[in-house]
Amino acid sequence: MDRQQVVNFGAGPSALPTSVLEKAAKGLLNYNDNGIGLVELSHRSKDFAKLNDDLESIIRTQLDVPSTHHILFTQGGGSGQFSSVVMNLLARHTLLHPDLKPEERVMDYIVTGSWSKKAYEEANRLAGGKAVANLVVDARRTSKDGKSFDNVPQPSEWKLSPAANTAFIYYCENETVDGVQFSDSSFPHHLLENSFNPPLVADYSSSFMSRPIPRIADHALIFAGAQKNIGPSGLTILIVRNDVLVDVDAAYKLGANPVPLTMAYKTLADSKSLYNTPPMFAMYVSLLVLQDIQAKGGLGPLEEVNRRKQAILYEVLEGYEEKGILKLKVQKGSRSWMNVTFEFVDKQVEKAFLESAESKGLKQLKGHRSVGGIRVSLYNAITEEQVKSLISVLHASLGA
Amino acid sequence: MDRQQVVNFGAGPSALPTSVLEKAAKGLLNYNDNGIGLVELSHRSKDFAKLNDDLESIIRTQLDVPSTHHILFTQGGGSGQFSSVVMNLLARHTLLHPDLKPEERVMDYIVTGSWSKKAYEEANRLAGGKAVANLVVDARRTSKDGKSFDNVPQPSEWKLSPAANTAFIYYCENETVDGVQFSDSSFPHHLLENSFNPPLVADYSSSFMSRPIPRIADHALIFAGAQKNIGPSGLTILIVRNDVLVDVDAAYKLGANPVPLTMAYKTLADSKSLYNTPPMFAMYVSLLVLQDIQAKGGLGPLEEVNRRKQAILYEVLEGYEEKGILKLKVQKGSRSWMNVTFEFVDKQVEKAFLESAESKGLKQLKGHRSVGGIRVSLYNAITEEQVKSLISVLHASLGA
Repeated sequence: MDRQQVVNFGAGPSALPTSVLEKAAKGLLNYNDNGIGLVELSHRSKDFAKLNDDLESIIRTQLDVPSTHHILFTQGGGSGQFSSVVMNLLARHTLLHPDLKPEERVMDYIVTGSWSKKAYEEANRLAGGKAVANLVVDARRTSKDGKSFDNVPQPSEWKLSPAANTAFIYYCENETVDGVQFSDSSFPHHLLENSFNPPLVADYSSSFMSRPIPRIADHALIFAGAQKNIGPSGLTILIVRNDVLVDVDAAYKLGANPVPLTMAYKTLADSKSLYNTPPMFAMYVSLLVLQDIQAKGGLGPLEEVNRRKQAILYEVLEGYEEKGILKLKVQKGSRSWMNVTFEFVDKQVEKAFLESAESKGLKQLKGHRSVGGIRVSLYNAITEEQVKSLISVLHASLGA
Repeated sequence: MDRQQVVNFGAGPSALPTSVLEKAAKGLLNYNDNGIGLVELSHRSKDFAKLNDDLESIIRTQLDVPSTHHILFTQGGGSGQFSSVVMNLLARHTLLHPDLKPEERVMDYIVTGSWSKKAYEEANRLAGGKAVANLVVDARRTSKDGKSFDNVPQPSEWKLSPAANTAFIYYCENETVDGVQFSDSSFPHHLLENSFNPPLVADYSSSFMSRPIPRIADHALIFAGAQKNIGPSGLTILIVRNDVLVDVDAAYKLGANPVPLTMAYKTLADSKSLYNTPPMFAMYVSLLVLQDIQAKGGLGPLEEVNRRKQAILYEVLEGYEEKGILKLKVQKGSRSWMNVTFEFVDKQVEKAFLESAESKGLKQLKGHRSVGGIRVSLYNAITEEQVKSLISVLHASLGA
């Protein structure tokens, strides 16, 4: 089957532009015409130092990252960061407030879906008696059915810890499994308006580079796996404010847990992401994807395309919801632009739709195994036309 | 410049076979003719599950890994493993011997070069007051100049800790920076012949899959970054004996430090390396490389080729050493097959040789920045003919 016959709506790893992959395939055999392929280059070579700089610089420009923040590249994905966040931010808090008792040292988690729930669980596990994880809000409590992640709760529902005791406040901007995303109105602006602001940490894995990041400068840490909008799996991107790059060994002497060297943000920053061999090929493809975005006008135009893609799909789905044919899983105002989740009322109809879509080359539309139903992922590489193809198949399979 | 005009003697990331990279370039755009590229596939797809199984199975067959051992894939490289080894093996030891005092819980490090030295330093740092790192031997003490890593010391020089107190014994089979490698005669066979054997841990990063691993079944853990003999950076391969897959949370309750979830070997084993998204492209290329090795007869014939490559090069270098033109850095009996290190007596001659080699497309021959001189890496993708080309350039630049 040819690439032209397939549309890949998978939730990640996910579709990348064909033109980018063609370029990457050439670089794999011969990078910059030096007779050596990209994956065969030394990570200490001039060629790769330039690639590293270029990737840092294009992310800085596109997202308007201020000079107070480092942009770093590492491995281990979002799940690795669930641990790194805890270790680095507790080290920072220990240095600032060495005399707090463990029960007074708090990590505030806003849980709006499967991934922030996992992050919260890891914080509980890993704090190791040195701090406690506080569930600021569990969005299942404000859900329609009392058990699903289908909304971002209003800030009035949030129970934040006292600021001086808070090592950090954590949220996941887009919940890939559930299809829940913070909108401009649900973004926690109010957290940033206290006189003392605990560091704000955000998991942007599945919305990174799909649109600008609101108030990026006010975040202490943003992390994202590359394998959604911008590249192959194996690369994790960090945007880290200077004050988070702390000496973890000094914190250990004051009572914090020891931190594996490669997980300390300061190790990465001090070496410009080259403490050890980085995931070079994933960095290369990500650079090509971002250069492609830049050539097409950057994040502004891209945001408009992404806005239209989800708008036309949700509009059609809402029509069918009114007719009682399907149910959108997420409440209005919290629906993701990236992962559109719904289920058919009649499971036979759902099966027929999936088969019809598959036969027309529209692939990877099944919902996450933990929640079922349908999930349509609309990452950057999916075009407006491809969304319209999906809508046509939906109409046809419902006899409309 | 074309690939045919270049020979890449780099120490890693390093040369891969052209035919493999050509196949990988196709799979990057369209894997298994399903219209989706390898890096765009879900890691939960049937296609990728098969790739994961195939990679496990070809390593098991080629290295004769027994069923007592898991083969696992992760991220973070050798430096990540420096930390994981300490955390997992201390957890294991705590479960077995919960009542030891920290000073009685020992990690035994055999330090024969820059990488085992780094691993020893990380063990010291990360044990965090729960155990101590013991320097079994520092090979600089038995070196010719009293300060370089140029040998694997005789076992009579080793000061092992009492077996019951030893959480593990660690060595690095091939020291990439220094060019020191364990030979059959220096391999620590005697460690395996006690009635109580502490777990034996080996860093095989730069010799993995260059020849069979002696007494592989007697190792508790072998780890290797892929980016030398078999693939792109970003993939770490683990061969782990069942008894090392311990419940790190149970160990924490008995006093061990908490372990980041993605660094616990049991997490990886329980999920068949798919706890989170793995470095898929690096796994794909590694599988293609290993299939290529298998098609050519496997590790037996490969070992013979690698034996000849280093033999012809060392013979020529020894000849020039006798004439006082250059010095081999490593003592006889400890010389690496993978990384051949030497320096010219006259630095002008060294410069001229490097320039002459570079002009003929023989690249990445400079020694590691920490030690200088020349380093010729003879990984699997380097052919005997290419070694002979290097020898010709050496003769020519010396007027021989």
